[in-house]
Amino acid sequence: MDAAEFRRRGKEMVDLIADYLENIEQRPVYPDVEPGYLRSLIPEEAPEEPDTYEDVVKDIERVIMPGVTHWHSPYFYAYFPTANSFPAMLADMLSGAIGCIGFSWAASPACTELETVMMDWLGKMLKLPEDFIAGTHGQGGGVIQGTASEATLVALLAARSRAVRMILASDPQRPETGITSKLVAYSSDQAHCSVERAGMIAGVRMKKIPTEQSDKYAVQGETLRRMIQEDKAAGLIPFYFCATLGTTPSCAFDHITELGPICNAEKIWMHIDAAYAGSSFICPEFRPLLNGIEFADSFNFNPHKWLLVNFDCSTMWVRKRSDLIGAFKMDPLYLKHDHQESGRYFYTDNSLFRSLKMWFVFRMYGLKGLQDYIRKHVELAKEFESLVRADQRFEISADVVLGLVCFRLKGSNEVNETLLKRINNGRKIHLVPCQLSGQFVLRFAVCARTTESRHIREAWRLITQLAEEVIQAGLDQEL
Amino acid sequence: MDAAEFRRRGKEMVDLIADYLENIEQRPVYPDVEPGYLRSLIPEEAPEEPDTYEDVVKDIERVIMPGVTHWHSPYFYAYFPTANSFPAMLADMLSGAIGCIGFSWAASPACTELETVMMDWLGKMLKLPEDFIAGTHGQGGGVIQGTASEATLVALLAARSRAVRMILASDPQRPETGITSKLVAYSSDQAHCSVERAGMIAGVRMKKIPTEQSDKYAVQGETLRRMIQEDKAAGLIPFYFCATLGTTPSCAFDHITELGPICNAEKIWMHIDAAYAGSSFICPEFRPLLNGIEFADSFNFNPHKWLLVNFDCSTMWVRKRSDLIGAFKMDPLYLKHDHQESGRYFYTDNSLFRSLKMWFVFRMYGLKGLQDYIRKHVELAKEFESLVRADQRFEISADVVLGLVCFRLKGSNEVNETLLKRINNGRKIHLVPCQLSGQFVLRFAVCARTTESRHIREAWRLITQLAEEVIQAGLDQEL
Repeated sequence: MDAAEFRRRGKEMVDLIADYLENIEQRPVYPDVEPGYLRSLIPEEAPEEPDTYEDVVKDIERVIMPGVTHWHSPYFYAYFPTANSFPAMLADMLSGAIGCIGFSWAASPACTELETVMMDWLGKMLKLPEDFIAGTHGQGGGVIQGTASEATLVALLAARSRAVRMILASDPQRPETGITSKLVAYSSDQAHCSVERAGMIAGVRMKKIPTEQSDKYAVQGETLRRMIQEDKAAGLIPFYFCATLGTTPSCAFDHITELGPICNAEKIWMHIDAAYAGSSFICPEFRPLLNGIEFADSFNFNPHKWLLVNFDCSTMWVRKRSDLIGAFKMDPLYLKHDHQESGRYFYTDNSLFRSLKMWFVFRMYGLKGLQDYIRKHVELAKEFESLVRADQRFEISADVVLGLVCFRLKGSNEVNETLLKRINNGRKIHLVPCQLSGQFVLRFAVCARTTESRHIREAWRLITQLAEEVIQAGLDQEL
Repeated sequence: MDAAEFRRRGKEMVDLIADYLENIEQRPVYPDVEPGYLRSLIPEEAPEEPDTYEDVVKDIERVIMPGVTHWHSPYFYAYFPTANSFPAMLADMLSGAIGCIGFSWAASPACTELETVMMDWLGKMLKLPEDFIAGTHGQGGGVIQGTASEATLVALLAARSRAVRMILASDPQRPETGITSKLVAYSSDQAHCSVERAGMIAGVRMKKIPTEQSDKYAVQGETLRRMIQEDKAAGLIPFYFCATLGTTPSCAFDHITELGPICNAEKIWMHIDAAYAGSSFICPEFRPLLNGIEFADSFNFNPHKWLLVNFDCSTMWVRKRSDLIGAFKMDPLYLKHDHQESGRYFYTDNSLFRSLKMWFVFRMYGLKGLQDYIRKHVELAKEFESLVRADQRFEISADVVLGLVCFRLKGSNEVNETLLKRINNGRKIHLVPCQLSGQFVLRFAVCARTTESRHIREAWRLITQLAEEVIQAGLDQEL
């Protein structure tokens, strides 16, 4: 395929994409296929000679679409949102064409520099403390990661490296081996599973801090302080705490104003994972949720979740860039260049032109447009919450702060599991569950860019209709 | 921006991309900017109200292009290639629109399944041993990673996990803490810097195996065997060896037919990193370079380098999927689904619809088209090698096996550094150096899809012209 044919095929693809997204709500949101469905639909080997492009395009509907979970359907309420906007898609097209690999400043200065400046733009939208803004002289700054899981791990590794350095500095005779096995990290028992995985990868203890429903599933300062004291008494070295703002199960918020000073006093690296909730902090009314950021060493959230920047774009800020660079830097000759000392631009992981889509989205929406978008989703969640609260058969299981509503039928876990199964088998709307204090709970997350009040009301109509059936079946069984 | 406007803007972007790629050789391949150039060209903060799309597009030429290193210019000979093809770009557009996050089978069955099948297609193109093909009943299979660096790390972590399990199985009383500090991994002193970094991340010793020019920079079985014996005698536990096929400095090949049996006998996980060279193994004449794969536990290369699949697409195969899954698996309720036990489809990192671009590329080129592409690049490298060999002032510094030519002026490192500086300052062609046996060497890698013989000859004309100047300046200085 040459450039001339790409002009034609590319324009057809633009129409195909627009058609797909304009008509997405007519598709069943959750696919009706069994594991292994795809293999039998295509040949067992790649063709020797080229296929025609027409055949490839036909196979999108024949092979792919039947197995797609449509994350951008307005009837998708599972997990958390993943972003999808036209400006971001346009930027990604350009990024693919430029196709530079930004592993150093010289490998593409524009790539590295736009990333640093976009991270400053976004940091200012969030009103991050000055320490996290690179500017022209700052010690801190932002870098784009692929996922929040990566950011958690990167922060943990930087913290481990800093901890080992501090320990060796205070006791130069101490052998380096063995230090890691004494290190202990902490996170909420509500934290995302990737936090535990980060601990496994780094080979350090990761202790889960218990939370309570009565505390709204937030980590309490007193609990953290007690665990630290016990661990120190046992000869361990506390070095990392991952706070969560907006947990995956229920969108709970750890009290970082209380936890931060404890970490600072103990020289524990505090990382804040706000993967989902972070986007909302661009609105003044939600910004107080980030109070306490001034105590953090690193902070991360995913514009690819809720800020209209397509995957992947997970933004991470550190107070001291040198902590990151020091933990990962390698200097082979084939990466050296004349501007080697421009350390400001040398990060560990900016290997795509991912900042282009931030630039396109921020400019095409403007801060106000982005704020409106967040507010609309929160309003839709509140609307759903009202519908649930007005129905005596249901209960709300956690505070509705942003775009997630945790709810359940009053009754057994089994009845709620049955309800969820019926909802998802219907394939009209899609939800996933969570567990809160031993209860099986349904999560309703406002996800798609195009979700409107009518979709929320339709979803509730379906849920109540199926609940009616489940309750009736239960009554029939009792009789 | 709504779908209607996207139809218009998307088509304009398709033309912009086609124009860019059709005219890329008119641009200076390496940018003439100083660190920090970009910040002053754009506002310090995101706009409150939206900018116009026209302004955004204008800024591509004003802000971005002056700072781009044009990796797809036929005059780009630095690092290694990064892929760029029209079918891959079309697939990426579609992937962005579907925008599903494939962290489980249920999150988008098509995403997970197409990946598994495409990895089988590619594995068959490479004639990998049956053990690495998932099929419908296999124990092994492939998974897409972001980069070879990630694959190296993932393999190392799986190996670490397996080693700890084996040690505890043979000595159940042994405490788990402390095992990691006894583990030792190996790789060539020619291995990519990310291998050393993987060791740092995993917190294990990573020993560099010395190589010699006389052995063509390949790790020798005898050297590995001796290091293993010494380490075991010192109470350490060898557990991982990363072999390289096609090193970054000189495209050297470790002798895996010799190294593999040693690793197997010692229960050392052998990972093969063929990031660049791997693509060539689809050609029967280069496939012997992969002989010894039957001894490996995992194997990785980057179709996003040399197989026309745009970044990121780093393909990794393992002999036992359970080794990977076991090392990383987490099972929170919000990721559970009805087909949980379809473990075949549950991988650790398939979070994008990256297999779509493999599918488009393999079908639009066909195996023959892909083989032709590899062969053309190798021929161009051989052509460049001939030009160098015909000039008595130059020497070839390493065997030319694939698309990389390592060469230098006979003379001091300084004179070669000066030559390279002049080449890159000219901005007409772009190269990076490497170090081989203490010598400063120029690397000439055939990179762009559109590089032709005329570009190679033009590059050589420029190099010899600048060499003439450098030599003349040296003579003048002596006088």
